[in-house]
Amino acid sequence: MTFYRDALLGDASNKVVSFTSSMEEDRLIVNEVIDVLVAHVKHLISMELIPPESGNKILTALDNLSRNTDELFKISAEDVHEAIEIYLRNTLGGEAGWLPLGRSRNDHVVAALRLKTKKLVIECVGEILKLRKLLIEKAHQNLETLLPLATHLQLAQISTVAHYLMYIEEMLRDFTNILYYTLSDFIDKSPLGSGAIAGTTVPIDRFELAKLLGFKGLVYNTLYATSSRDFISVTASIITSLSVALSRVAEDFIIWATSQFNYIEPPSSHLATSSMMPHKKNLVSMEVLRAWGGEAIGHLAAILSVIKSVPSGYNLDLQEVTKHLLRLLLNSIEALTIFRDFIKYMEFKDKVLNEEVQKYLLTVTDLAEHISMKYHIPYRDTHKEVASVIKKLGTTDINLICFELSKKLGINAEDLLKVVKPENVLRTRKVVGSPNPQLMLLTIKESEKLLDNDCSRYSALVEELGILNECK
Amino acid sequence: MTFYRDALLGDASNKVVSFTSSMEEDRLIVNEVIDVLVAHVKHLISMELIPPESGNKILTALDNLSRNTDELFKISAEDVHEAIEIYLRNTLGGEAGWLPLGRSRNDHVVAALRLKTKKLVIECVGEILKLRKLLIEKAHQNLETLLPLATHLQLAQISTVAHYLMYIEEMLRDFTNILYYTLSDFIDKSPLGSGAIAGTTVPIDRFELAKLLGFKGLVYNTLYATSSRDFISVTASIITSLSVALSRVAEDFIIWATSQFNYIEPPSSHLATSSMMPHKKNLVSMEVLRAWGGEAIGHLAAILSVIKSVPSGYNLDLQEVTKHLLRLLLNSIEALTIFRDFIKYMEFKDKVLNEEVQKYLLTVTDLAEHISMKYHIPYRDTHKEVASVIKKLGTTDINLICFELSKKLGINAEDLLKVVKPENVLRTRKVVGSPNPQLMLLTIKESEKLLDNDCSRYSALVEELGILNECK
Amino acid sequence: MTFYRDALLGDASNKVVSFTSSMEEDRLIVNEVIDVLVAHVKHLISMELIPPESGNKILTALDNLSRNTDELFKISAEDVHEAIEIYLRNTLGGEAGWLPLGRSRNDHVVAALRLKTKKLVIECVGEILKLRKLLIEKAHQNLETLLPLATHLQLAQISTVAHYLMYIEEMLRDFTNILYYTLSDFIDKSPLGSGAIAGTTVPIDRFELAKLLGFKGLVYNTLYATSSRDFISVTASIITSLSVALSRVAEDFIIWATSQFNYIEPPSSHLATSSMMPHKKNLVSMEVLRAWGGEAIGHLAAILSVIKSVPSGYNLDLQEVTKHLLRLLLNSIEALTIFRDFIKYMEFKDKVLNEEVQKYLLTVTDLAEHISMKYHIPYRDTHKEVASVIKKLGTTDINLICFELSKKLGINAEDLLKVVKPENVLRTRKVVGSPNPQLMLLTIKESEKLLDNDCSRYSALVEELGILNECK
Amino acid sequence: MTFYRDALLGDASNKVVSFTSSMEEDRLIVNEVIDVLVAHVKHLISMELIPPESGNKILTALDNLSRNTDELFKISAEDVHEAIEIYLRNTLGGEAGWLPLGRSRNDHVVAALRLKTKKLVIECVGEILKLRKLLIEKAHQNLETLLPLATHLQLAQISTVAHYLMYIEEMLRDFTNILYYTLSDFIDKSPLGSGAIAGTTVPIDRFELAKLLGFKGLVYNTLYATSSRDFISVTASIITSLSVALSRVAEDFIIWATSQFNYIEPPSSHLATSSMMPHKKNLVSMEVLRAWGGEAIGHLAAILSVIKSVPSGYNLDLQEVTKHLLRLLLNSIEALTIFRDFIKYMEFKDKVLNEEVQKYLLTVTDLAEHISMKYHIPYRDTHKEVASVIKKLGTTDINLICFELSKKLGINAEDLLKVVKPENVLRTRKVVGSPNPQLMLLTIKESEKLLDNDCSRYSALVEELGILNECK
Repeated sequence: MTFYRDALLGDASNKVVSFTSSMEEDRLIVNEVIDVLVAHVKHLISMELIPPESGNKILTALDNLSRNTDELFKISAEDVHEAIEIYLRNTLGGEAGWLPLGRSRNDHVVAALRLKTKKLVIECVGEILKLRKLLIEKAHQNLETLLPLATHLQLAQISTVAHYLMYIEEMLRDFTNILYYTLSDFIDKSPLGSGAIAGTTVPIDRFELAKLLGFKGLVYNTLYATSSRDFISVTASIITSLSVALSRVAEDFIIWATSQFNYIEPPSSHLATSSMMPHKKNLVSMEVLRAWGGEAIGHLAAILSVIKSVPSGYNLDLQEVTKHLLRLLLNSIEALTIFRDFIKYMEFKDKVLNEEVQKYLLTVTDLAEHISMKYHIPYRDTHKEVASVIKKLGTTDINLICFELSKKLGINAEDLLKVVKPENVLRTRKVVGSPNPQLMLLTIKESEKLLDNDCSRYSALVEELGILNECK
Repeated sequence: MTFYRDALLGDASNKVVSFTSSMEEDRLIVNEVIDVLVAHVKHLISMELIPPESGNKILTALDNLSRNTDELFKISAEDVHEAIEIYLRNTLGGEAGWLPLGRSRNDHVVAALRLKTKKLVIECVGEILKLRKLLIEKAHQNLETLLPLATHLQLAQISTVAHYLMYIEEMLRDFTNILYYTLSDFIDKSPLGSGAIAGTTVPIDRFELAKLLGFKGLVYNTLYATSSRDFISVTASIITSLSVALSRVAEDFIIWATSQFNYIEPPSSHLATSSMMPHKKNLVSMEVLRAWGGEAIGHLAAILSVIKSVPSGYNLDLQEVTKHLLRLLLNSIEALTIFRDFIKYMEFKDKVLNEEVQKYLLTVTDLAEHISMKYHIPYRDTHKEVASVIKKLGTTDINLICFELSKKLGINAEDLLKVVKPENVLRTRKVVGSPNPQLMLLTIKESEKLLDNDCSRYSALVEELGILNECK
Repeated sequence: MTFYRDALLGDASNKVVSFTSSMEEDRLIVNEVIDVLVAHVKHLISMELIPPESGNKILTALDNLSRNTDELFKISAEDVHEAIEIYLRNTLGGEAGWLPLGRSRNDHVVAALRLKTKKLVIECVGEILKLRKLLIEKAHQNLETLLPLATHLQLAQISTVAHYLMYIEEMLRDFTNILYYTLSDFIDKSPLGSGAIAGTTVPIDRFELAKLLGFKGLVYNTLYATSSRDFISVTASIITSLSVALSRVAEDFIIWATSQFNYIEPPSSHLATSSMMPHKKNLVSMEVLRAWGGEAIGHLAAILSVIKSVPSGYNLDLQEVTKHLLRLLLNSIEALTIFRDFIKYMEFKDKVLNEEVQKYLLTVTDLAEHISMKYHIPYRDTHKEVASVIKKLGTTDINLICFELSKKLGINAEDLLKVVKPENVLRTRKVVGSPNPQLMLLTIKESEKLLDNDCSRYSALVEELGILNECK
Repeated sequence: MTFYRDALLGDASNKVVSFTSSMEEDRLIVNEVIDVLVAHVKHLISMELIPPESGNKILTALDNLSRNTDELFKISAEDVHEAIEIYLRNTLGGEAGWLPLGRSRNDHVVAALRLKTKKLVIECVGEILKLRKLLIEKAHQNLETLLPLATHLQLAQISTVAHYLMYIEEMLRDFTNILYYTLSDFIDKSPLGSGAIAGTTVPIDRFELAKLLGFKGLVYNTLYATSSRDFISVTASIITSLSVALSRVAEDFIIWATSQFNYIEPPSSHLATSSMMPHKKNLVSMEVLRAWGGEAIGHLAAILSVIKSVPSGYNLDLQEVTKHLLRLLLNSIEALTIFRDFIKYMEFKDKVLNEEVQKYLLTVTDLAEHISMKYHIPYRDTHKEVASVIKKLGTTDINLICFELSKKLGINAEDLLKVVKPENVLRTRKVVGSPNPQLMLLTIKESEKLLDNDCSRYSALVEELGILNECK
């Protein structure tokens, strides 16, 4: 079918049309395209720019169509916009021809895409909020569950499960906020009424039309409105940064689930077996999430590379960008639900973690700080003394190290032995944000408040969209 | 030299140390590293955690060092942190050993990096603001300078130079705001006092220490503070999105500077000649800016790929990320100055642009809209009628097309001929954001106000930093 | 359905299984998976490792399945391997259980993937060969069709259409050869018989099994065989480099199709119209091809970022890589057919090209070289003389420049005027590979021979695969 | 200084010139640029195209210059080509002006770049060969050193250190060969004599000139020769694929060096300590190598994104690509030396590895295969039986599992207990490429032969280049 091109260019080979067509990708935005058209036609009627009877017939037909969009995809067309016009022409005849007055695909496709992006970003925020709630709850239950933390994958300092989980929560909080910001200042703006690039002589009230669709503002300049995909590159960037940040968490869990670490018991549903090796329990969900970080980088690189150095004004290159953005958003939403399911049902193995803390040198830094402060020895010297003793003894028994230091520095051994006890160590960490259970409790309280605020904002957004979706 | 490792590991081969050392890259953040140390020592003194005399000697030595950092880079060290300790030890002896109390490189390096990023982001915003000012001024002077705009690089609609320039301005405005947002909510937060990963028993007041360095807030969780590089991936993403957006503008100028388009006269300083071909004038600055969009993608991909799936907690992988962020920021700042220089001194060739508008079909859409609205013909039918006439006549003479349409549709030819005059067309575009000179003037006024706000915010930031730097 | 996991782990939630499942992507390799299983079972029978009756029943069932694979995708399974076992168990009962002896999914999936990659790479080479043939033919027809070539998009030297087309041909020739190389030395090697990672005690003859599937060699080390995806990253890299190289050709055509250049007449089927602007003819196929270069970069970045730093041995991350490779190959094959269709039916506008050559300074370099060589003036001085004259006269009339130079240097004007004639210029270019029609004819003859060789190799490959596919 | 642009354009602002200048990056290729010029001038003399005395003076000056290139970089110039002409003009006066006859920067810069790439690729191959030699030697010494291998980071099958090391060796062998291929068919071809884009009227014998510089062939088409950077994208792709593959090996070592795994003892020189935590031994060299995989992806993405959709013919965008290629090559060479140093001096901890093999279920697959083959039970059923027993007993004691299976299946327990002994298991793996020490020895012998071939080829290449460099 060759509706648009007929008069000027005539028929075209199917091969090329199918190569340049976006019909397949348009499935994901067809509802938004129809919503935009409905608003457009309503506005044309209210501005008395088209005959009201024709306008109303079109609205009825669009309403029918919106309930059964499958029909559209049986039509061979350049894109969903053309398919809809063909459908309307078949249904209504010539009156359907009022639809495109004052509208270009250039402003309409990007409007639909902004609406879809808005919905998906809100959905993504919703998932983040649920995950944050879970993290706070689980942290609350694990204020004192010891967890040895590593830097460079080498054991570093003693910490708690709460501390680890609240690190993820704070990260997700930062991403919540920048997603809200991106939504309000980059995505949620109407490009409608911009024509193909330089506006239209049809006297559309762009503010009114924007309001009909719930847009919070305008992309003013009509060239910017039709041509720019900065809202896509920025949104994709943030989603990718989040995906990459979460790939680190997936890596933590994969390592902690090894036989050698054995820190956690993953939920059975996240494990897979081997078709050959009868004993294998592989933490596959976290592997796919780790890989997703890499795939996200690829989608972002695609978006940016496609946009790079395309002349200003709409070019069909920009059509190819859409699928990568939607893939990024849809997969990230799914990834967040999988993370939540995992964290909800996995268990930290207290017994193993407690043994681990005994087995390795995890409180030696606290010891060195104690010696430096209490016995007035510059920290660098203390540090070197302790290191020498560790080297000399070649042990991971912290008590032996205390005795040796006591001897060497003429310090009371009891004082040192008391300091290095895991249960004491945590309480001597007085800095905000540390795993000290008392301070962590305050952090949790504060985080709950911030989460409540973010949830209220979310509720307002979903209500506006008419989506039923509970926060948390 | 092997200062840190001595006691535990002994000497190491130079080859490996130099491979893992960050000394070369640390040149760019050495001042910030010293600033952080100064604040740290002041805080230790004020909290009575170290002997004040020792503390003050260290402060004096750091002050001296800050005025001649070259000395540091003669020291062979793992990084600038070690080099500074070696320097202080050489200068002050054992008392220098009080410096590292309650500090890890993990919290200090990221604090220095946040300070440096903050400065560079502010500098970048400053350059954007200057460019926006120039664009507004030049737009003001070119409200009526005709410019044919293309979609798909095929001539589309008539527009003006002001419209084109203000598209860039609105884009830069959006990036100004998200950079401000990223600054306040991602970058400008203190990680200090977090120890290596799980805090310290040294009772540092993290809020006080943050205040000393002008940080606006805290990264609370100490694991998040020391381990996360999300502020880098987000900042790098936005800078890359901006660079990619600007590569499109560079492409416009390169195309407009061809002999065939001949729309603009680039400033001679942006041209280069050929060593072989005596007649060549190549617009090389815009080519480098176009390429920069691609290089930025590369730096961003490096940052994200390095971070991807690194375990939580500091790993040396993260050190490798820094150079890509700083390269992105420094080059983008330079790119903005080059753009500004170009736009300031380039000229739009009015005469050519006016001829272009006569030569090609640029007002045919306005004509079709006029016919549809005035003579009540559905737009799709009007569109097809006009297209058929264009096909039939095979002309780019808009007047001939008017006559033919007048005949075919029984419409007065004069009415049509009047409509398609470039000078009339612009005024019939009534939608906000279109090139209509009257509406564009309002847009410019509004943009000036928004720019003023952004400049005030900028002035406050640079004043705080003690940098002398005028907005605009 | 939870076939593999039943005994060890029991049932799992659908959500997680569907997240980690590869069923959807496996559609593309299901035939190859079955082929591999058929070979595996045949080998087990011939080695007397399983009961021949059971083996033969399995072979029959697999044969049936291969003719209707849709059934498989109704089965809920982790992947196509599990689905096939479920299918066979449902069909044959317990005897089906002989299938997995001595086989892991780890060696089988990568074997199937290598077979699929092999086929697609050969298909891709086939498309390249057809395009090369077309380019040679069209070049032959356009040995003397003038074409001004630009550097920096600024007109540089006079050339011919044949010269331009043969540039693409030589490029494609290089890619043909490296694809052949990658095929034989990276892709076409059997990983079968490697077990999960460290082999199997089932005495499989890996060479025999490889031969059954037409593999040219072995990936020897079983860890390398099951874990490495280097053949994917290398293949993807080369396909991406090719896609990026071709995006430059797409850009050339887009620019040449502008009204301002007007060098070519694209085939109507590659153009699209506007839904709003009645006059537009947009070269959309080339825009999608240009964008494809960027998308390819994204798929490659995804592949590399996913693989980066995954531990050796199979990890599920590697499953996520497959779809990006197949997308790269399938799209590139389609892209090549679109390029061929375009080049076949597009026309170079001789008249415009001839005028262009008169209109601009294109033979001025040939002039400078002539003066330097004939009148013994160092080239740098000649170059500067000519440049000064161009600057002084500010003309693009080469004749005026000849007269002025004649005056200035005391040289006979006739001699210069003769030199700068386009028809003369080409013949004075004596270097191999230049557009000189006589030399170009030799190049074409040589290229035909090389193409014939490459086609013979291709024919041998497709015959082996039993695919009917003619070269050229 | 403004040498080239003087006559046509006059002076330019320093800011823009410095922005577009490549002087800094040209440091890396200055010797190759001079080599190319020397060959060019020699050829002009031998073809009697320039006065021999002038030519010889230029040759002498270039020879002097090559011994002290620092002088060049004091000259302000667009690039090293202009700087050399300025230097020669200052030294020789007007006669220096013969140099540029028949040469463009477009063919000369890419010739120099190809020479430099050739040298670095050969250097890279040299490092790979040395690493392969070491791997073979160390494998030979560890034919029987047990190593548990994991898939999904979960223990999978018993293997040996030799098996692991020879996996890396086979991978490096594949990369050796494709680098040799890329060298001969992509890189080592002369673009000289191509002029700016469409050749030159100066009758250069391109074959002769290529021979003078040791190029193995020609890039024929002059447009292809001057404009294409496919040899860069292909070379960069392969180096990146290699870097990514090696990042997986780095990850293995990082994990194996944790306290929890404790499989290896890294050389002390590859470890770093903490400035705060006295006990830390961080495997930093492997972290930087792991990160390098990510950085390589970034450089490749930069190269491809910059090239994407740049019009055919030289554009200054291409200049920006060079630094990323050279960075890739130089860093990869260094990375390979660090890997070699690490592997040479690290130790596998036999005792720990032996205990590990007892501690976990590593021979259970061998057991299941044994039962299936000896007692004629379909493998799927055997697999499920064994899995059920593992689940039921919840043990990692393989003997208990044998007893239970013996009971359940009515099989002699002794037979099973014999099978699962690690020392027996390896010998029952009869497939080529498995860790079976006897088969591995054959593999090693074969690999030594292949390495010898690759070394001979390397020796021939370095001899040709006049570089003293021993293989291995």
